[in-house]
Amino acid sequence: MKRNYEGWVGFESGTWNNEINVRSFIKHNHVPYDGDEKFLEAPTQDTLDLWDQVLELSRKEREAGGVLDMDTSIISTITSHGPGYLNKDKERIVGFQTDKPFKRALQPYGGIRMAEKACADNGYKVDPQISDFFKVHRKTHNAGVFDVYTPEMRACRSSHIITGLPDAYGRGRIIGDYRRVALYGIDRLIEDKLEQKATTRSAMYSHVIRAREELSEQIRALEELKAMAMSYGYDISLPAKNTKEAIQWLYFAYLGAVKEQNGAAMSLGRTSTFLDVYARRDLENGTFTEKEIQEMVDHFIMKLRLIKFARTPEYNALFSGDPQWVTESIGGCAIDGRHLVTKMSYRYLHTLKNLGPAPEPNLTVLWSKRLPDNFKRYCAKMSIETSSIQYENDDLMRFTHGDDYAIACCVSSMRLGKEMQFFGARANLAKCLLYAINGGVDEITKKQVGPEFSPITSEYLNYDEVMRKYDAMMRWLAEVYVNTLNIIHYMHDKYCYERLQMALHDKNVTRWFATGIAGLSVVADSLSAIKYAKVKVIRDEDGLAVDYQVEGDFPKYGNDDDRVDKIAHDIVHIFMEHVRKNHTYRNSIPTTSILTITSNVVYGKATGSTPDGRKRGEAFAPGANPMHRRDTHGAIASLSSVAKLPFLDAQDGISNTFSIIPGALGKDDRIFSGDLSIELDCSTGACGTPTLFEGLDGDF
Amino acid sequence: MKRNYEGWVGFESGTWNNEINVRSFIKHNHVPYDGDEKFLEAPTQDTLDLWDQVLELSRKEREAGGVLDMDTSIISTITSHGPGYLNKDKERIVGFQTDKPFKRALQPYGGIRMAEKACADNGYKVDPQISDFFKVHRKTHNAGVFDVYTPEMRACRSSHIITGLPDAYGRGRIIGDYRRVALYGIDRLIEDKLEQKATTRSAMYSHVIRAREELSEQIRALEELKAMAMSYGYDISLPAKNTKEAIQWLYFAYLGAVKEQNGAAMSLGRTSTFLDVYARRDLENGTFTEKEIQEMVDHFIMKLRLIKFARTPEYNALFSGDPQWVTESIGGCAIDGRHLVTKMSYRYLHTLKNLGPAPEPNLTVLWSKRLPDNFKRYCAKMSIETSSIQYENDDLMRFTHGDDYAIACCVSSMRLGKEMQFFGARANLAKCLLYAINGGVDEITKKQVGPEFSPITSEYLNYDEVMRKYDAMMRWLAEVYVNTLNIIHYMHDKYCYERLQMALHDKNVTRWFATGIAGLSVVADSLSAIKYAKVKVIRDEDGLAVDYQVEGDFPKYGNDDDRVDKIAHDIVHIFMEHVRKNHTYRNSIPTTSILTITSNVVYGKATGSTPDGRKRGEAFAPGANPMHRRDTHGAIASLSSVAKLPFLDAQDGISNTFSIIPGALGKDDRIFSGDLSIELDCSTGACGTPTLFEGLDGDF
Repeated sequence: MKRNYEGWVGFESGTWNNEINVRSFIKHNHVPYDGDEKFLEAPTQDTLDLWDQVLELSRKEREAGGVLDMDTSIISTITSHGPGYLNKDKERIVGFQTDKPFKRALQPYGGIRMAEKACADNGYKVDPQISDFFKVHRKTHNAGVFDVYTPEMRACRSSHIITGLPDAYGRGRIIGDYRRVALYGIDRLIEDKLEQKATTRSAMYSHVIRAREELSEQIRALEELKAMAMSYGYDISLPAKNTKEAIQWLYFAYLGAVKEQNGAAMSLGRTSTFLDVYARRDLENGTFTEKEIQEMVDHFIMKLRLIKFARTPEYNALFSGDPQWVTESIGGCAIDGRHLVTKMSYRYLHTLKNLGPAPEPNLTVLWSKRLPDNFKRYCAKMSIETSSIQYENDDLMRFTHGDDYAIACCVSSMRLGKEMQFFGARANLAKCLLYAINGGVDEITKKQVGPEFSPITSEYLNYDEVMRKYDAMMRWLAEVYVNTLNIIHYMHDKYCYERLQMALHDKNVTRWFATGIAGLSVVADSLSAIKYAKVKVIRDEDGLAVDYQVEGDFPKYGNDDDRVDKIAHDIVHIFMEHVRKNHTYRNSIPTTSILTITSNVVYGKATGSTPDGRKRGEAFAPGANPMHRRDTHGAIASLSSVAKLPFLDAQDGISNTFSIIPGALGKDDRIFSGDLSIELDCSTGACGTPTLFEGLDGDF
Repeated sequence: MKRNYEGWVGFESGTWNNEINVRSFIKHNHVPYDGDEKFLEAPTQDTLDLWDQVLELSRKEREAGGVLDMDTSIISTITSHGPGYLNKDKERIVGFQTDKPFKRALQPYGGIRMAEKACADNGYKVDPQISDFFKVHRKTHNAGVFDVYTPEMRACRSSHIITGLPDAYGRGRIIGDYRRVALYGIDRLIEDKLEQKATTRSAMYSHVIRAREELSEQIRALEELKAMAMSYGYDISLPAKNTKEAIQWLYFAYLGAVKEQNGAAMSLGRTSTFLDVYARRDLENGTFTEKEIQEMVDHFIMKLRLIKFARTPEYNALFSGDPQWVTESIGGCAIDGRHLVTKMSYRYLHTLKNLGPAPEPNLTVLWSKRLPDNFKRYCAKMSIETSSIQYENDDLMRFTHGDDYAIACCVSSMRLGKEMQFFGARANLAKCLLYAINGGVDEITKKQVGPEFSPITSEYLNYDEVMRKYDAMMRWLAEVYVNTLNIIHYMHDKYCYERLQMALHDKNVTRWFATGIAGLSVVADSLSAIKYAKVKVIRDEDGLAVDYQVEGDFPKYGNDDDRVDKIAHDIVHIFMEHVRKNHTYRNSIPTTSILTITSNVVYGKATGSTPDGRKRGEAFAPGANPMHRRDTHGAIASLSSVAKLPFLDAQDGISNTFSIIPGALGKDDRIFSGDLSIELDCSTGACGTPTLFEGLDGDF
């Protein structure tokens, strides 16, 4: 069937005309931009006025203790609220989660108690009728999970050997391909979903029934999205006809998702190069000026900065703040050799100047050696000026994920519309090592949490014995952990399904079953100490190993020393192999990540002293970082250790938080200048600053 | 663990002391009663007063058009309502579905539109907030099913080749073992369920997760049941201590089930012999007199007569009335050779005298040649006087179901607490034959409903050709039918799970996947006509076969003629083999039934003329009955034809509705007297009147 949409005039044809395929659209229509940032425009008066309004509301919100307003009687759905505005006359891109900015929505599907608590902690109270309804008639994800947990799972959760499980909050980490709404319009997407439904398997096995029901829900969500857009005066049934509509359609799609889901990470995807195709056409046609386009982008980014969820203090403690992870992936290269930097990549980053720096949206540059120099320089400059850019290794991820993936949260890469992730929090491998030594008894609570294996009773730790017992304990931990996650994702699908986000995916989605590792460098150093030094066990009156005395020196992870780096490498591999031994929900593919860039402090707090000399309660290093101050051989050596980790065993990402004093890198202020200490959360494979980064290639 | 409950004093020990096993309790404690009915007591004044009250309310209900009061804002749960009474001082056994008698509960889990319609059709309106909630946030069974149906399934449903599917109403057909609450008390049952939960498989496959969640729901339902009983002033946490408590505990359990579920058949089980153990002990101990015990039974049965549901006119049309199918199975024999008739069996039937005849509860005698003569005579007498007793073939069912099964609805046998049924309505095999002739085109709507196979084009029908095409069409029909039912039961479990009823089952339940056949005798006679006479096809202007002209005579089902009886036998077997080729939900065991004792009229109405000479719209024979007036060789021959049907292919039951003019059987009024025409719905294998019945043994 030949389709001729008004919005497609002027675009080069390709597979994308006949099937839902945004990547094909980009491939056929994107033009790499090698120029510099001189074309960028300053904010308009309307932009400045709106942003002043935002700053004023933000001030009020801070004064009110963090929350300005909350819904207590309207349950958030795609269509639950009428339109909301800052100033309708000045906004080029419109749409809020509720009927006004800064008002947080009520989203109880994940858990009514969590929703109640989020309200209560901010001085609000959920309508008792709604509370009652969700407790009696409409079960939530959280209630479902706790109905199924085993006592062992609860114990692992309480003792923090497994932590941060998404069992009381939305799992997030799913990125709808929001671009599809702009490129195809809702009607075409519904047509596609109807076709998908018509072509499921015909024998009604339960998984086929589930798939068909989900497709029906997806179709309904798309229809609701259309209705929501209509309430703002936009008919999104057909493809967007220009840049403004494309941004607006795309934003509506994302807005629908956040109206529906309060997920831990509600990332945006990879939208800039896609939108650049529209902007380039409109500029050529004279439809819009550069100033107008930048204004739209500014307003769009402003909206993304105002995405807010109702959350509890406990949640914020776990995540060290109240992040939404509206991650947008910028740049990177195509597999055909061209880079994907466009003027729109600049425009997105330029909002950090037009509106000022901000942590959200989480602007993430997919760094490649092949990015154009001008763009590299611009990124470096903006990093220095705003400290607001995240970098990830495109050369590494392109290998496994192609050239139309994006980052969910901080490091989780997934092909847009083709892959999703079951988010899996983290297993505390440092604590697991202590369980191996103590025969499954928790070193803090003294409860038997793990299996009652025989503990180590010798005065000095023997490496082979420890490794043997550690291997068995990791095997146990992987099993409990994976089974716990199986329950969580079953229930999330059952009670808190991401209708709209999944509507913006293909029919056959690859599901990543994400797990995570915490305390890797503690484990590596502990095992190194046991192997290369002498570690004496200090036991309490019950014979429980509670502290360790290290006699002699030992190689420490973070110094490019293969003796210990090999241990770190092997632990990741062994644990991942244990994970893989278990059934994973919905044919998902197990992965792991090493990325606790914030909660490493919390995990350390819950973990006793370790054989590397770290004392009870002391923070772990973040992600795959070496322990603080132990990487004594310089930046390159430190990064080299991280780079040895096996990416194919930790495909969900490896995070390395790296701080540099600019002076250490020379005096050239084109790259680093001023007296800023730049902190970059660099993720997925070893990475560092834009410059350092190029020297490292990962180890696959 | 040795358990010593006060309620168990005086009972003989057995396996039942150490595990949940009511059958063991009966086996060790029941004493067969061979005496006559002379011990029975007349109703007390309180009973008469209460019954007058019921009659008065019934009159008012009729005057009000069929419904006296309906809940529109309280969603029925086990604990949703405070206690309700007729007259608290006079009632020995208490408990109503809502806070007063004759008030119908609001039960939207099966389908909100059905609940709304049931209200609307009676002049009530469901609270809009509740309607909205169930449409937006709390999906129902009905909504789930229709999200998954294929266009083919919808077409089959619309054309009535598959009919009466429980996709808009509760499936029913599950019997909780309500006796367990009396014998063990809630706390012991919860203990058992906790142990079941602790011993599920440990790898969290989805079916294990589902099982664990269901067990949690069951435990919660048991706790709610305790709370509900407490609201009536009874603590049912421990075993019942006497007859009155035993009846009350048991009734509370049943009441909890009907508060939770508006199922098409909410049967009671097999309670009389169980309760007799208590009554015998209490009589011996002087705790109660016979008069007191009969009074309790009268009040219990009175309560069962007042079970009411909110239903729509369409529902009532399908079921020819508003049946609840509160079926109670009485009598039968144990596999150890003793019969299970007790004084309590008499007391139950005696309520038909004390309170007068009534269709509910559906008192069903499990007939065996070995029942004591006195009881046989009493049953016959009560049948003659009240026309209110159903008979089923215990000698046949005991073979497959042991001696602690009961009947759900009219013929579906299941071991109590060990087996349940997924109710499956019916496939119209007569229409299927017409589809075979017309290549899948519906003879009424002229739409292509079945697969577009080549139609028969000859002037006269050829038996082999018809059979070949019919076989293929039955194969198609069985596949669509089973897949449709898979969807229904998946969704019923998901959105309308029978928490309390399943709490009163074992951990490992055998699930029967029931299907059903309509129009068997039409099919048998049609094929016989094609084979033994000549059948000319009358086609309309489109070439569609719309009528048939039979030339010559042919053997007709119902005359003990093997030529056609064999056809009937084979069709059941062939269809069932096609059913068995398909996947059935939850490892259920496929069965079929031949039992449309009411809706045969509706099915006939939707079916065109058939090759046996039956004209378009004419009713089918009920169940496995021969077509009206075609069984010309007498009662025995008619019953013999039915008896040849393969019970092991139709284990869900074979129903034969049989009317006898008493004079035909002789003049002895000890068995049949008066000028009544007795109609007995006799089910499961060939059966007839109590007397005739003994001459037939089934064919396995």
